[in-house]
Amino acid sequence: MQFHLNGFRAGDPAVVDDAGVFAPELPDEMDVLIVGCGPAGLTLAAQLAVFPGIVTRIVEQKAGPLLVGQADGIACRTMEMFQAFGFADRVMKEAYWVNETSFWRPDGAARGRITRSGRIQDTEDGLSEFPHVILNQARVHDFYLEVMRHAATRLTPDYGWRVVDVRVARAGTHPVTVSLERVEGGERREVRAKYVVGCDGARSAVRRALGLALTGDSANQAWGVMDVLAVTDFPDIRMKAAIHSAAEGSVLIIPREGGYMVRLYIELDKLGESERIASRNVTADYLVAAAQRILRPYTLAVKEIAWWSVYDIGQRLCDRFDDATGEAGPRVFIAGDACHTHSPKAGQGMNVSMQDGFNLGWKLAAVLRGVSGEELLRSYSDERQAIAHELIEFDRVFAKMFSAPPKDPDDPASEGVDPQEFQQYFVQQGRFTAGTATRYRASAICGGDEHQSLATGFVVGMRFHSAPVVRLADAKPMQLGHVIKADGRWRVFAFAGAGDGVAGLCGFFGDDPRSPLRRHRPAGSDIDAVIDVRAVFQQGHRELSIGDMPALLRPAKGRYGLIDYEKVFCADARPGQDIFEMRGIDRARGCIVVVRPDQYVALVAPLTAHEALAGFFAGVMI
Amino acid sequence: MQFHLNGFRAGDPAVVDDAGVFAPELPDEMDVLIVGCGPAGLTLAAQLAVFPGIVTRIVEQKAGPLLVGQADGIACRTMEMFQAFGFADRVMKEAYWVNETSFWRPDGAARGRITRSGRIQDTEDGLSEFPHVILNQARVHDFYLEVMRHAATRLTPDYGWRVVDVRVARAGTHPVTVSLERVEGGERREVRAKYVVGCDGARSAVRRALGLALTGDSANQAWGVMDVLAVTDFPDIRMKAAIHSAAEGSVLIIPREGGYMVRLYIELDKLGESERIASRNVTADYLVAAAQRILRPYTLAVKEIAWWSVYDIGQRLCDRFDDATGEAGPRVFIAGDACHTHSPKAGQGMNVSMQDGFNLGWKLAAVLRGVSGEELLRSYSDERQAIAHELIEFDRVFAKMFSAPPKDPDDPASEGVDPQEFQQYFVQQGRFTAGTATRYRASAICGGDEHQSLATGFVVGMRFHSAPVVRLADAKPMQLGHVIKADGRWRVFAFAGAGDGVAGLCGFFGDDPRSPLRRHRPAGSDIDAVIDVRAVFQQGHRELSIGDMPALLRPAKGRYGLIDYEKVFCADARPGQDIFEMRGIDRARGCIVVVRPDQYVALVAPLTAHEALAGFFAGVMI
Repeated sequence: MQFHLNGFRAGDPAVVDDAGVFAPELPDEMDVLIVGCGPAGLTLAAQLAVFPGIVTRIVEQKAGPLLVGQADGIACRTMEMFQAFGFADRVMKEAYWVNETSFWRPDGAARGRITRSGRIQDTEDGLSEFPHVILNQARVHDFYLEVMRHAATRLTPDYGWRVVDVRVARAGTHPVTVSLERVEGGERREVRAKYVVGCDGARSAVRRALGLALTGDSANQAWGVMDVLAVTDFPDIRMKAAIHSAAEGSVLIIPREGGYMVRLYIELDKLGESERIASRNVTADYLVAAAQRILRPYTLAVKEIAWWSVYDIGQRLCDRFDDATGEAGPRVFIAGDACHTHSPKAGQGMNVSMQDGFNLGWKLAAVLRGVSGEELLRSYSDERQAIAHELIEFDRVFAKMFSAPPKDPDDPASEGVDPQEFQQYFVQQGRFTAGTATRYRASAICGGDEHQSLATGFVVGMRFHSAPVVRLADAKPMQLGHVIKADGRWRVFAFAGAGDGVAGLCGFFGDDPRSPLRRHRPAGSDIDAVIDVRAVFQQGHRELSIGDMPALLRPAKGRYGLIDYEKVFCADARPGQDIFEMRGIDRARGCIVVVRPDQYVALVAPLTAHEALAGFFAGVMI
Repeated sequence: MQFHLNGFRAGDPAVVDDAGVFAPELPDEMDVLIVGCGPAGLTLAAQLAVFPGIVTRIVEQKAGPLLVGQADGIACRTMEMFQAFGFADRVMKEAYWVNETSFWRPDGAARGRITRSGRIQDTEDGLSEFPHVILNQARVHDFYLEVMRHAATRLTPDYGWRVVDVRVARAGTHPVTVSLERVEGGERREVRAKYVVGCDGARSAVRRALGLALTGDSANQAWGVMDVLAVTDFPDIRMKAAIHSAAEGSVLIIPREGGYMVRLYIELDKLGESERIASRNVTADYLVAAAQRILRPYTLAVKEIAWWSVYDIGQRLCDRFDDATGEAGPRVFIAGDACHTHSPKAGQGMNVSMQDGFNLGWKLAAVLRGVSGEELLRSYSDERQAIAHELIEFDRVFAKMFSAPPKDPDDPASEGVDPQEFQQYFVQQGRFTAGTATRYRASAICGGDEHQSLATGFVVGMRFHSAPVVRLADAKPMQLGHVIKADGRWRVFAFAGAGDGVAGLCGFFGDDPRSPLRRHRPAGSDIDAVIDVRAVFQQGHRELSIGDMPALLRPAKGRYGLIDYEKVFCADARPGQDIFEMRGIDRARGCIVVVRPDQYVALVAPLTAHEALAGFFAGVMI
């Protein structure tokens, strides 16, 4: 954390100086109106909240924050994003850690009893510096709400408003008009925004107003879900466990935070064509009884049900996530469940929704701050619709496999899935479910891969895969990826080769009229306000001196011109911890890695590719 | 973190259910009155705040919480204690990490210029799982105040009260009467307490009322201290740096949290006999000019002074820390600067004071809860006065060395200290300054060392040195020491040998009428309410099953009888991470390690020493 740049201030440094822009009442006009306080909406709101020049509001039809239930899986990739928002450590502390997953199937000798068929490490070594964890969605909301409250804008949701209609005009500074209605009392309001984002769930009013539809499979598999406090002799009750019984269906066990609570996903009978689970009048007792039958010979005594629900969601998707046309750029977006729904069993819903919000947030901020042109906004639907499409395809297979009965080894002709095959699929898809397989296609904000060989571990289009380094100025061992904060800035990491390419690059960036740092930076702002340049050297930290570094790597900032000492890093000398080795960086030539504000690698280039770099940023920024 | 044991509850699990015992106004009677909201007082208050059956109040003469200045060094041992209180992670995130220390002396060729003479790793590898860090004392206070606010008692300081007098009666339920005066307005109150603890600093009113005196060296070396935002070309400005100039004196540089601020300790001229620094009218400009002279040839441009002070504290100590007599047990205690003062340069003051509070807290709680007899309270002064004595001795040498001029290599007969010698002394004393060298003498609460060979790395009388383990039930990699929370409980760690000694021990603990868990536990409480038994096995976590563990290691707890799955651990199979190897545990015989509520090892014993264990606890508990 960096603070005190513009003077010492007592108190919690996470609480930024109040810019005084938050109006207690919902105003008539705003830059961005977000609809819905779910994971997508709150991620977006938390991102926009850090910019005091942007007026953001978020409305929610519920009367207050979520307290219980809903999603709970937090993938490694999401933890990396939480780190950028500053609360990964709190999630780590409070959450359950998914360390292993166990698989149970019918006992060969007595198929009415389940037996453990395998156990695997949940996340492969080195996939992320963060674990896969489980935490009540409500707590994730709490952390985002705190980020918003502490940000310069002091953004707070306006609860109790429902969207009635959204209309987009062709012109005007605030072309989107949204009709709102108070849930209590029915008062109507019209507000105008430059942009509106519907994060209002599977029954999204914003989507409906755009005339978009979720299309895909009708659901014919129903599941129950419950968070329980229970006493059991099932030995893997504190492991994530996928259990397939011979004849009673399946249960997925997800242990929960706090050491006692557990979530059970319980397979229900197949639904008929166009039948909805709501019509079945499933009770909590029914779910408990089903779980008890599946878990035999183990017992399960449920002492308290904290929350439960039934669902029959199929795999459904919108074909685009905004209202753009050939001529007109997007003004209204949808994100999260509003544009993609699927089964919850792979723990993807909340994670993918938050990545939607993260993808859109920095783009809206860049356009509203005048850093980038409006065309940038088209990339949101392009990038995220493709990812959602992959998710839907994955989930179709995964959910089907999960719901299929286990194949009887004594009857090889029988229908069903070999539990070993299910386990293998689970392992194969580990990177996908961890959220680290996301790869954006080449575009104006995602370069080609012609120089990928310079850094094989920083794949263009994929998230920046953090690795350990040692900070030169204070010898602090740390994760390089953790310098990427959710602050809307681009990062340029210069990895030194054998020559003095870093000095050359810094000279270009610092002094050349074509430098993107000079071209795209708002007047009066710090040198790193839009593009943040950092360097990593192959030497140990005692072999270099901060005093010998190019001026750009120890910039004077803020009202006092204080030196920022956190731009230069060295390889970590511990065995197996050298970032050049870990990420396949060319030791002779070095390289440049450009990282987007949402932590995705935009470009890998030679250290000498000054013009190409300038060209890349000219394509992204004004 | 464990929560939801007695039912799901929404919100932050760190906020414990309000027991409704905190009165808005200072009551007439209380169990414990703490005087002073410094590090010692707040540590003690945070400890007592977790017990809803104990009425604690803390008064402070200042009008509100500390905002700026004072101490900033947080030793590794203190971080371990912060972990027990639940906020080590927040300190890690916000603080500056002291990774290396550099040493500067006059340049041999040009003695008017300083040059780096050495750099060392600040903390030896493996000394603690936590780093040595630097953070504004005010933030440490903030974290303690939050622990208190969130605890069952919702303890909040009563600001603006000054202690006028303390009187101890021979009898009565609340024998200590304290006269208080409102700082604003002068209103007087008398309150009565069972125990009073003076944490009210070097000019302690409580100490004065006890008739105790700080005795020791008069100070004749004066120092200035300032927290500044400055621009400099001194390359180690983000390293802890001890700088001895040839003729201008010494500076100690302590980089501070946030990346920009730095603390400077600046040597001032020697004082005359019985002269006080206050009489010199030292100004901030004077301190800046002195620092500039010492740092030559480097420049220092100070942009803002966040805080500054001058001091001339010598090494002084009380010969006892309570009012006990041969017959009467203690009723009034003093802690922190009230009983020991010394130079701040080794960063010990705040740390030792907090350990005073931690040592006393669990003892007061045990006596007030009826777990232990009053004689336990005598051990506070016995243990902590000896530690303070060691600190004073250390500081006398350290401060003298620091203040001595550097020896001129061209004039070996000259007065002064060889900078190399100073650096060596610094390294030698690393464990002491890290706070991990503290060793309590044998007593009723600290067993002898006759079985020390069973676990050479868990030294009786020293703090439990954490090491990695994997939790059996959920395969979570973690630090064993982090199960020790500041909750007043004793821990028994049973390290398995080659036989079934753990099962035998659990049988004794669980079923035998002589079991200390049966004897000393309040009726109706959980089996682990007073003594928390855990086991560590040599096998990997996939080789054992939680279902095969003795009942005592998967106890049913709380209103629902939910099973606590967090009692059993396995060795971590990663190279160099096996706790049996790291802590020298006898693999054939195993052992028992008994740990006090303040994290100190009380006993190492054979797994079969059931009677001896029972005897030990009978000596500590009622």
